[in-house]
Amino acid sequence: MQYSQLTKEELILLKQELENEYKAFLDEKLSLDLSRGKPGKTQLDLMTGMLDCISSAEDCIAENGTDCRNYGVLDGIPEAKKLFSDLLGIPTSNLFIGGNSSLNLMYDSLARAMLYGVVGGECPWSKIEKVKFICPAPGYDRHFAICESLGIEMIYVPMLPTGPDMNKVETLVAVDPAIKGIWCCPKYSNPDGYTYSDETVERLAKMKTAAPDFRIFWDNAYAVHELYAEGGDVLADIFEECLKYGTQNRVLYFASTSKISFPGSGVAILAASEENLKQIKSILGIQTIGYDKINQIRHVKYFKNAENIKKHMMLLAEVIRPKFEIVESVLSSALDGTGAAHWNRPKGGYFVSLYSEEGCAKRTYQLCKDAGVVLTNVGATYPYGKDPFDSNIRIAPTFPSNEDLKKAMEVFTVCLRLAVVEKFLALK
Amino acid sequence: MQYSQLTKEELILLKQELENEYKAFLDEKLSLDLSRGKPGKTQLDLMTGMLDCISSAEDCIAENGTDCRNYGVLDGIPEAKKLFSDLLGIPTSNLFIGGNSSLNLMYDSLARAMLYGVVGGECPWSKIEKVKFICPAPGYDRHFAICESLGIEMIYVPMLPTGPDMNKVETLVAVDPAIKGIWCCPKYSNPDGYTYSDETVERLAKMKTAAPDFRIFWDNAYAVHELYAEGGDVLADIFEECLKYGTQNRVLYFASTSKISFPGSGVAILAASEENLKQIKSILGIQTIGYDKINQIRHVKYFKNAENIKKHMMLLAEVIRPKFEIVESVLSSALDGTGAAHWNRPKGGYFVSLYSEEGCAKRTYQLCKDAGVVLTNVGATYPYGKDPFDSNIRIAPTFPSNEDLKKAMEVFTVCLRLAVVEKFLALK
Repeated sequence: MQYSQLTKEELILLKQELENEYKAFLDEKLSLDLSRGKPGKTQLDLMTGMLDCISSAEDCIAENGTDCRNYGVLDGIPEAKKLFSDLLGIPTSNLFIGGNSSLNLMYDSLARAMLYGVVGGECPWSKIEKVKFICPAPGYDRHFAICESLGIEMIYVPMLPTGPDMNKVETLVAVDPAIKGIWCCPKYSNPDGYTYSDETVERLAKMKTAAPDFRIFWDNAYAVHELYAEGGDVLADIFEECLKYGTQNRVLYFASTSKISFPGSGVAILAASEENLKQIKSILGIQTIGYDKINQIRHVKYFKNAENIKKHMMLLAEVIRPKFEIVESVLSSALDGTGAAHWNRPKGGYFVSLYSEEGCAKRTYQLCKDAGVVLTNVGATYPYGKDPFDSNIRIAPTFPSNEDLKKAMEVFTVCLRLAVVEKFLALK
Repeated sequence: MQYSQLTKEELILLKQELENEYKAFLDEKLSLDLSRGKPGKTQLDLMTGMLDCISSAEDCIAENGTDCRNYGVLDGIPEAKKLFSDLLGIPTSNLFIGGNSSLNLMYDSLARAMLYGVVGGECPWSKIEKVKFICPAPGYDRHFAICESLGIEMIYVPMLPTGPDMNKVETLVAVDPAIKGIWCCPKYSNPDGYTYSDETVERLAKMKTAAPDFRIFWDNAYAVHELYAEGGDVLADIFEECLKYGTQNRVLYFASTSKISFPGSGVAILAASEENLKQIKSILGIQTIGYDKINQIRHVKYFKNAENIKKHMMLLAEVIRPKFEIVESVLSSALDGTGAAHWNRPKGGYFVSLYSEEGCAKRTYQLCKDAGVVLTNVGATYPYGKDPFDSNIRIAPTFPSNEDLKKAMEVFTVCLRLAVVEKFLALK
């Protein structure tokens, strides 16, 4: 049943079968979307109580007396810091509470490095002939888009189940001072759902970098985004590791409640060493008067404590887990034994990352598109949008209804198998 | 009674009198603040209804079906655009709805120009040896801080009651291509409360600039911030003027509801030509996934239309106007006829701008500080924090209670008179 083992005749027959199935889908004139890593309506409905949990002037007074309705406080109200501190295990003195978007904090951090430089550096990065970043891939397309936008050269390093290929990373950063940083999505990585191993985290903290001002952009987007109540992945504490090796200034840590409370109306955080924060705040204090403190206190009053956030994540998991199970079930029943693809079975996060037989991702994408099923742009998970193997496909199961998801996955597996059969047939 | 006309003996006597008054204030151990251009509690309390005006999932659905709770929509929901369009007289196609801070949009616009350049320019401004900005002064210290932070050289041009000294502006921009822009607070200017004359607005639109990519940063912070129901200043439409002269790309227009709804939790806008917006959005779409749409729809549901915002501004005026009257009354009763200072009587905005006898502002500031009355840093209203005349003092009356304000103003006038008497005495 391994497609690679089939004879020409068997492939022709199989192709015919798959084309018939495909044509039946075409007749259904579908319009389905597997591309968007965003919560579905049911998830959002679980947050309705936050909308009006602040209703009086008194509700807006922070514990230190700050009136959250007025100007002031650049780095966040104390109770918001405490909430994130407890949730993420980061001391409040290392926390900066931002606006609604951690991506915005990441972009601003890189733009700031370009315009001003960072602690330990000699000059603004924009004054350097060439700035390079290590981009483990597959990864998050918006990380790569920031680099491309700012003219930062991206160096591809493969993602392994343990995280970025650290042998490659260490070799690269040791010799090239133009390599100023690395993008990391260390827990339930986008799209693979891998969590960096303890060894990877330690090696990132420990490695010698030719650039004295090297920065790890630690996008812990799925820090508490578990699919199961128990047995989830545990990510080592990067700050603790850095402290061991005296590299605390190396890390800029990002997270948000976008996939906890409301995407676009959540609260984002930046965590960094006190030395880094001092420099960052001195510039952010020029950039803005402050972020939305009413939204900060809204989050605090609604969740009350970190434990409640974790409980809320389990309510969300009840909604999301069945979707991951649908993906798994359709994929395994259609593809097991074919060798057409392999994929991950993550214990958290937002994606299933599938690797088709090499050279078949683009064709699968196109077949799906023609049948009304939108996938994340193939290649988007690699720097410059180019998957060197034309293989990785990011499946985002959270947004569609379970029914739509099942149908879309069925179409997808037919398209994928057809693409793989076409490839093998062309080789005969 | 003109202090400049007093004899040495008269000055000595007056100084003794003022010192006695000052000492009495010292004994009161005051702690008062006239420095902060921010709303007082009574103003904020008038907005309580907005806090919980959104309470259900249905409330979050925009008129085009967008679920404001989820990701998506970079440039604002249609009804928010319509609200600001009606309020400010700007077509929706020229509007971009941002986050909570217009200052943030301004900083980002200048940072973006440094990193990417602007429409009509040849390169990112950071690639140019020297970038200069015209800074009409007195002006807003945070505008100047952005320039200083980004290494942009500030060129001082005096503010006149009609706006920036346009003879000087025209001469400067005509010859120097390094001058890339000008900061403008065109209505009820910070701190003078002046509104640019129609002629000034037209000359700004019409003037020849050596830089092909010159930008007017039009911070219309007090667009609808009237103190009186009638007879307020009317600002000419800069976009209309630019259209006449084909300079539509010259303007970046900013405003916010920070002093309408909640400072720090309002909605900010950027308005620009479609060509400018296209470039800006292509970069902002990398910087963020989008701004807080729940807060956008919260503002729309609460205010419903522009007319209601104007009515709300009149409620705020009822709170603020008495404060301006206290300032005026204390100043005129203490200073009329002394020649120690002159000041404005604005019909809107947030400040009273006072010009002391030259060389007396710093001393007044220090005397006030020692007596427990905090003023805006003297000099802050000028580029690099240096008032060439040591004269301008920005009085921000909105935050303190009426009682505190009256007391603070009484202390202030004694300090000011003492400083002026000391000056004249030193000249004898």
